Amino acid sequence: MIKNQALFHKPLKILTYFKRSHSVRKHSMHKHMRLFTPGPTPIFPLAQKAMSSPILYHRSKAFVELLSGVREGLKKLVGTRNEVLILSSSGTGAMEAAILNLCSPGDEVLVIRAGKFGGRWAQIVKAHALTVRILDIPLGEVPTIAQVKTLMMQYPNAKALLIQACETSTGVNFPVSEIAALTKKSDLLLVVDAVSYLGVSPFYMDNWGVDVMVSASQKGLMLPPGLSFVCFNEKAWAAQKKSKLTKYYFDLAKERKAIENNQTAYTSSVTLIQGLAVVLSYVHEIGMQTLFSTIHQKAQALRNAVQTLGLDLFAKVPSDGLVSIAVPHKIDGTKIVTKLRDEYSMTIAGGQDELKGKIIRIACMGYVQSEDLILLFEALEKVLVELGLKITVGQSVSVLKKEWSL
Amino acid sequence: MIKNQALFHKPLKILTYFKRSHSVRKHSMHKHMRLFTPGPTPIFPLAQKAMSSPILYHRSKAFVELLSGVREGLKKLVGTRNEVLILSSSGTGAMEAAILNLCSPGDEVLVIRAGKFGGRWAQIVKAHALTVRILDIPLGEVPTIAQVKTLMMQYPNAKALLIQACETSTGVNFPVSEIAALTKKSDLLLVVDAVSYLGVSPFYMDNWGVDVMVSASQKGLMLPPGLSFVCFNEKAWAAQKKSKLTKYYFDLAKERKAIENNQTAYTSSVTLIQGLAVVLSYVHEIGMQTLFSTIHQKAQALRNAVQTLGLDLFAKVPSDGLVSIAVPHKIDGTKIVTKLRDEYSMTIAGGQDELKGKIIRIACMGYVQSEDLILLFEALEKVLVELGLKITVGQSVSVLKKEWSL
Repeated sequence: MIKNQALFHKPLKILTYFKRSHSVRKHSMHKHMRLFTPGPTPIFPLAQKAMSSPILYHRSKAFVELLSGVREGLKKLVGTRNEVLILSSSGTGAMEAAILNLCSPGDEVLVIRAGKFGGRWAQIVKAHALTVRILDIPLGEVPTIAQVKTLMMQYPNAKALLIQACETSTGVNFPVSEIAALTKKSDLLLVVDAVSYLGVSPFYMDNWGVDVMVSASQKGLMLPPGLSFVCFNEKAWAAQKKSKLTKYYFDLAKERKAIENNQTAYTSSVTLIQGLAVVLSYVHEIGMQTLFSTIHQKAQALRNAVQTLGLDLFAKVPSDGLVSIAVPHKIDGTKIVTKLRDEYSMTIAGGQDELKGKIIRIACMGYVQSEDLILLFEALEKVLVELGLKITVGQSVSVLKKEWSL
Repeated sequence: MIKNQALFHKPLKILTYFKRSHSVRKHSMHKHMRLFTPGPTPIFPLAQKAMSSPILYHRSKAFVELLSGVREGLKKLVGTRNEVLILSSSGTGAMEAAILNLCSPGDEVLVIRAGKFGGRWAQIVKAHALTVRILDIPLGEVPTIAQVKTLMMQYPNAKALLIQACETSTGVNFPVSEIAALTKKSDLLLVVDAVSYLGVSPFYMDNWGVDVMVSASQKGLMLPPGLSFVCFNEKAWAAQKKSKLTKYYFDLAKERKAIENNQTAYTSSVTLIQGLAVVLSYVHEIGMQTLFSTIHQKAQALRNAVQTLGLDLFAKVPSDGLVSIAVPHKIDGTKIVTKLRDEYSMTIAGGQDELKGKIIRIACMGYVQSEDLILLFEALEKVLVELGLKITVGQSVSVLKKEWSL
């Protein structure tokens, strides 16, 4: 029997699960895996520190005061006077929460599907046995305003229109403000998935007339996954009161009441919120516009570098959160991802589902460092040559170094 | 315009939201708030370190290997051959997930309500418009086996029986294995909330015949809140296939498929799982029995100390996760909590709802240190005297010091 007070001081000879995992061991001890995936993105170091500070009791005065600041900071970021609710779930949980709180059995819901996450909207709607009307957009493209108008006219009784601000699977940005200009004149509720958009580019929920925004912590907000956000405007809250889909954990009326007291309805993900406080504090100190224009310039430089290599951008209306690159037909894109991982310890994302092998995706949002992006392009050039592509080695790296004076 | 690469290196002159919060400032810089709440409990330092390590990509080989170890470690802790699913939510989310995956509209569900969390079971069942049959147990007590038998006979067509392993609001342990001995001979599904029980005392899901177990990260597992766990046995999975309540994020069939590939269905709470790997690794290295008997001895010493002061234990069948103390009638228990917080920087929990002011609760599960518990009892004695109670100062502290050879 180990003595009571000594129990947790016993030196750890074997960390079984860490030992078992070769990659994890390599990762933790020998080599730092550089992360360029469009979520999770690298963690903001000061937030890391806050998340490692002694955990607060979620019903304490200290936490209530912290959450009061977070609440204000989130509203500013979302561009709204409405409450931004904080859930403990992935972004998908927040997407479902939006549907559960707007709809009733029998409702008809419109989805514009321009990729995997549009597909997720459709799945959620179907899972709750609602009627879904899908407008499919070719991958890499976004809907035109004329298409949205037609869709709305075709289904005048629809309850909600579900879109992405950024469709992470292809790297495009939807014309959110123009779509909102249409829906705000109607009874249709515009629900926007801003998971890989919030904290990347300006979002003006109230000015644009977006009815519902959902987002999450692990993209532009430079935090680990685990928090999600939902914001309803007055039109959406009116629908919430009438919504008849049953819910408990995702009952947003309860969350609204809680946040008005600087609380969450159930045990808050306290450490992540400690980190969020630091990120928001930082973002508002440097100024949102500074953050957004910096990310924009970074993305623009990456897009120039890609084109210098003779490669095509996959996204027709590219997001600043990530750069998606069309892989030339003769190359298998999954090999680029694997080689970068195994030979250079760098993680980028490939294409998902039908885009598997056809595109690669590199994050420019969040805490991705310019210096690391230069290392990535040095490696990427080598990998492309190894895979048989004729490119002028050094060209993309020169573009980046020049843009960033590095 | 701040130069691109310099953006995140700008020194932070004002951390707005931290500055705003007096308590947080005090907490972070001047004084360490000692945490004795029955969730969140203090974080295991090695897990803290793992959570601060560079974040893994949730679709990477490294994460898959990590999750494979976690999966095995969780099964051992739960005492099951079934998969233990990992959700990103609070414990309440996991409770609702259980109901959503067992029930269909029209189902009748039995709840034994011995406190706030039994009440939560009832609320979840009602929220989904199912028929709930509640057996109310006086606060501080647990049901007898005869009462459970009667309940089962009274409602022979009920789908499930919902109980707590430990009712955190009062500090009692239910006779789970004896209740399971009844239900496993019937069609009734036994669903056990083990949120403040798992990692505290032995749980033998398969041997006992528990059908569904739910738990969470912020209690015995010494992690921040944000992860929850659900385990179904074969009887429960058979019910899952027939369940007709609609769900998406909490669709456990999808999570089961994912975990079989060492993944979660949606973006995993990666950093918390990094921490979980370390906790499980540690627990299995020292041995579960060592952990449980150490916590038991710690709890037993605290219970002795409480009785030495002439105070009554509130829980008739006390859990080892927390000690709940009945506050003498002439004293307002909320004052004890407030004084400990404001004058001694120590956070304990009071009673909730109708127990407000009537009990106080002190965690003995997780990473609560004996040395800190001694400091707490020194402070508690002083506070009780200040509030007019006649006790012999130093008596409870002596008991603890003797028990722990400190």
